[in-house]
Amino acid sequence: MEMTHFDKSGNAAMVDISDKPVTAREAVAQGTIRMSEECLRMVRAGEHKKGDVLAVARVAGIMGAKRTSELIPLCHNIGLTAVNIDFEYPENENAIRVICRVSCEGKTGAEMEALTGVNVALLTVYDMCKAVDKRMVMENVHLERKSGGKSGEFRF
Amino acid sequence: MEMTHFDKSGNAAMVDISDKPVTAREAVAQGTIRMSEECLRMVRAGEHKKGDVLAVARVAGIMGAKRTSELIPLCHNIGLTAVNIDFEYPENENAIRVICRVSCEGKTGAEMEALTGVNVALLTVYDMCKAVDKRMVMENVHLERKSGGKSGEFRF
Amino acid sequence: MEMTHFDKSGNAAMVDISDKPVTAREAVAQGTIRMSEECLRMVRAGEHKKGDVLAVARVAGIMGAKRTSELIPLCHNIGLTAVNIDFEYPENENAIRVICRVSCEGKTGAEMEALTGVNVALLTVYDMCKAVDKRMVMENVHLERKSGGKSGEFRF
Amino acid sequence: MEMTHFDKSGNAAMVDISDKPVTAREAVAQGTIRMSEECLRMVRAGEHKKGDVLAVARVAGIMGAKRTSELIPLCHNIGLTAVNIDFEYPENENAIRVICRVSCEGKTGAEMEALTGVNVALLTVYDMCKAVDKRMVMENVHLERKSGGKSGEFRF
Amino acid sequence: MEMTHFDKSGNAAMVDISDKPVTAREAVAQGTIRMSEECLRMVRAGEHKKGDVLAVARVAGIMGAKRTSELIPLCHNIGLTAVNIDFEYPENENAIRVICRVSCEGKTGAEMEALTGVNVALLTVYDMCKAVDKRMVMENVHLERKSGGKSGEFRF
Amino acid sequence: MEMTHFDKSGNAAMVDISDKPVTAREAVAQGTIRMSEECLRMVRAGEHKKGDVLAVARVAGIMGAKRTSELIPLCHNIGLTAVNIDFEYPENENAIRVICRVSCEGKTGAEMEALTGVNVALLTVYDMCKAVDKRMVMENVHLERKSGGKSGEFRF
Repeated sequence: MEMTHFDKSGNAAMVDISDKPVTAREAVAQGTIRMSEECLRMVRAGEHKKGDVLAVARVAGIMGAKRTSELIPLCHNIGLTAVNIDFEYPENENAIRVICRVSCEGKTGAEMEALTGVNVALLTVYDMCKAVDKRMVMENVHLERKSGGKSGEFRF
Repeated sequence: MEMTHFDKSGNAAMVDISDKPVTAREAVAQGTIRMSEECLRMVRAGEHKKGDVLAVARVAGIMGAKRTSELIPLCHNIGLTAVNIDFEYPENENAIRVICRVSCEGKTGAEMEALTGVNVALLTVYDMCKAVDKRMVMENVHLERKSGGKSGEFRF
Repeated sequence: MEMTHFDKSGNAAMVDISDKPVTAREAVAQGTIRMSEECLRMVRAGEHKKGDVLAVARVAGIMGAKRTSELIPLCHNIGLTAVNIDFEYPENENAIRVICRVSCEGKTGAEMEALTGVNVALLTVYDMCKAVDKRMVMENVHLERKSGGKSGEFRF
Repeated sequence: MEMTHFDKSGNAAMVDISDKPVTAREAVAQGTIRMSEECLRMVRAGEHKKGDVLAVARVAGIMGAKRTSELIPLCHNIGLTAVNIDFEYPENENAIRVICRVSCEGKTGAEMEALTGVNVALLTVYDMCKAVDKRMVMENVHLERKSGGKSGEFRF
Repeated sequence: MEMTHFDKSGNAAMVDISDKPVTAREAVAQGTIRMSEECLRMVRAGEHKKGDVLAVARVAGIMGAKRTSELIPLCHNIGLTAVNIDFEYPENENAIRVICRVSCEGKTGAEMEALTGVNVALLTVYDMCKAVDKRMVMENVHLERKSGGKSGEFRF
Repeated sequence: MEMTHFDKSGNAAMVDISDKPVTAREAVAQGTIRMSEECLRMVRAGEHKKGDVLAVARVAGIMGAKRTSELIPLCHNIGLTAVNIDFEYPENENAIRVICRVSCEGKTGAEMEALTGVNVALLTVYDMCKAVDKRMVMENVHLERKSGGKSGEFRF
């Protein structure tokens, strides 16, 4: 196996995807932010009402996914056909899970977009809750699955 | 304690910092990406040479820190006076740790900038290594310490 | 009829356009800025010369149209094939009308791009004239017509 | 009175504010979007719940205000100390009013930031409701008041 | 021959490329930065090691190429399929040459992206070396060759 | 003399300017684009009229100067107090000279902003004229003078 982001002379480069076929691709990533019990209670109390931390984080994550190629140096700019973000409360934990699902039709996949969407949503939760708890920890950010493209189906 | 990113009517808003004093502030955040042994070996082999994954991730993290207020909806745009990023290899783990240190002189701190710098650097490592290992996991992203401002010194 | 920017669970999401056909689409939007007689006279005096307010506003509007998906949270990033902006002086009014025409070939239309182009051009006129008149009012910004896509032809 | 965005040779230029004093400044702008009765009912039904159009538009408007200097060619990039956005339902009209309040401490005011915040929020409402009503019209966007700076208090 | 960036009324406009065929296109641009002997020695000493000016400039150039349509007013936003940047040391000169190669598949070429990549890389070299030498000069920035599209092959 | 954009361990970093005094600073940069006689004649014919290439390039250069810190990785984001751009026709040459003057009040200078303004203006001229002449060459881009800051006055 080889790292692909380097050209023949060993220098960083945007991988040449000219010859790859255009296919429908989907990627799902997720991550978690652990927080104090008090902080989680406040977030949950505000949900689906005014003062909804997760509604703001959802918008931020979607917008962040669209700007992936501006942030990640060797990432191609691709047109996304769908982005959505869900939140879950893992059982028996003081934590919020973010799940970001991204679709595109192109020559390269949407893994980085999904991961960026997760990370920007997590950062936004941190920002909005940091007056209550500065010890929040973002954890377990990973690619859950992807489909489409030459490498085909992937599941974590 | 209260969430600060909501105005009197309970709506999301950029916190009013007009009355806060300008002070020198510093924030340090860190996070880790776990990967396969093979993948880590390839990253380490390339360090300080052509083909250096971490050099690209460092640049991305610094640039990402500067764009924090574009990504995080209620974050103030502040002028940073210094940003640097270090990488460490935690012992007995197949992992890379990213540490981002940000300074500013202003009415609000640089926590979000430091955390964003960490996350963009981690995402860049993922992007550059994903052809070798798609199961990498970003972990333990948190604020390590901050100083300056009314709330004073914080240590994780 | 239903709002489309929410997913099955009722959360905001970028509409999934994966299954829509690629067609040639065009959208035209317009809007007006009313100002004092003196201010309008100054704008008109400068037209097609050095000091041309409208030339600056035209460039701003075109550039703004290209950045629509960065500004509007649930808007898809699409490649535009043409953008142009015209100005007219409505009869018997102290006002300037901005018309923005945008073409694309894609799975979703260019309405938002045309409206954003109009609004950024109007804001630029305001900015350049505000030392003379702060009471300018932007009015009647709307979609004039669009073609292409499943919903077909629309005229205001 | 003179247009200020042109230099001595009559060319467009960013006004030189080097010699202006730093003062606390505030600007409030507003604007309205008129829509069908059905469309307004749907927006109101979703408020303060999942599926809240206005919560998304609020976030977009705040983020848009921060990016004003990227959109408006001759606008200075200034650090904002507060941004908030409110919505009102004007009586006896099928319309939503957006009010954006921006504070800064600097050598130039925040009028353009407040107006840009209004316009981006209005565009976002349009985007999210356009499947229900394409005939919405944005109206009466203007500067409501500003304070601070040499020209002092302004009221529409 | 005619300038193409003006519409029928003579106003600046984004050229309409709707009717152009999608073809594979490539563009190569280059440029040079001349500097003092001492400065060049320091850059060369750092190459392929920590402290590598050119590694940072390469990343900047690639990221700059992707943002061309945000910088150049009438430039179309196109999806790039590859970007890479090389550096050479012209013989008998105290200078560094930057070569940027960009590929896309679209209705318009990648000349501007390649030239922007060169210019951002050159500016980054200047920024990183300016403490040693402020008299550096960027020279001979031009399009070296392009292929694809109606106008076909071009060589400088 | 030493390169300043590397930290103690030799890694690229944003220089720490926390301890530098805030002073008024100004920087002037310039550069030239050489073109065919025919192409220059067309640009000159359009000046101060509709179809003015230089008016578009001026706006692009000013906007580009404001975005310098997004493009140049280790550049601080600073608030500019003035930006203006002039064009000259060097005698006995088929060329256009761009001069960009930038002021700021801060802890670091505006050299990079002035140079970026020049380069974006030159690229815009290239873009608008490339249908007539693809052999244009950008030349002699350099810092003309700067004042303010510890290193004081500089003249090329």
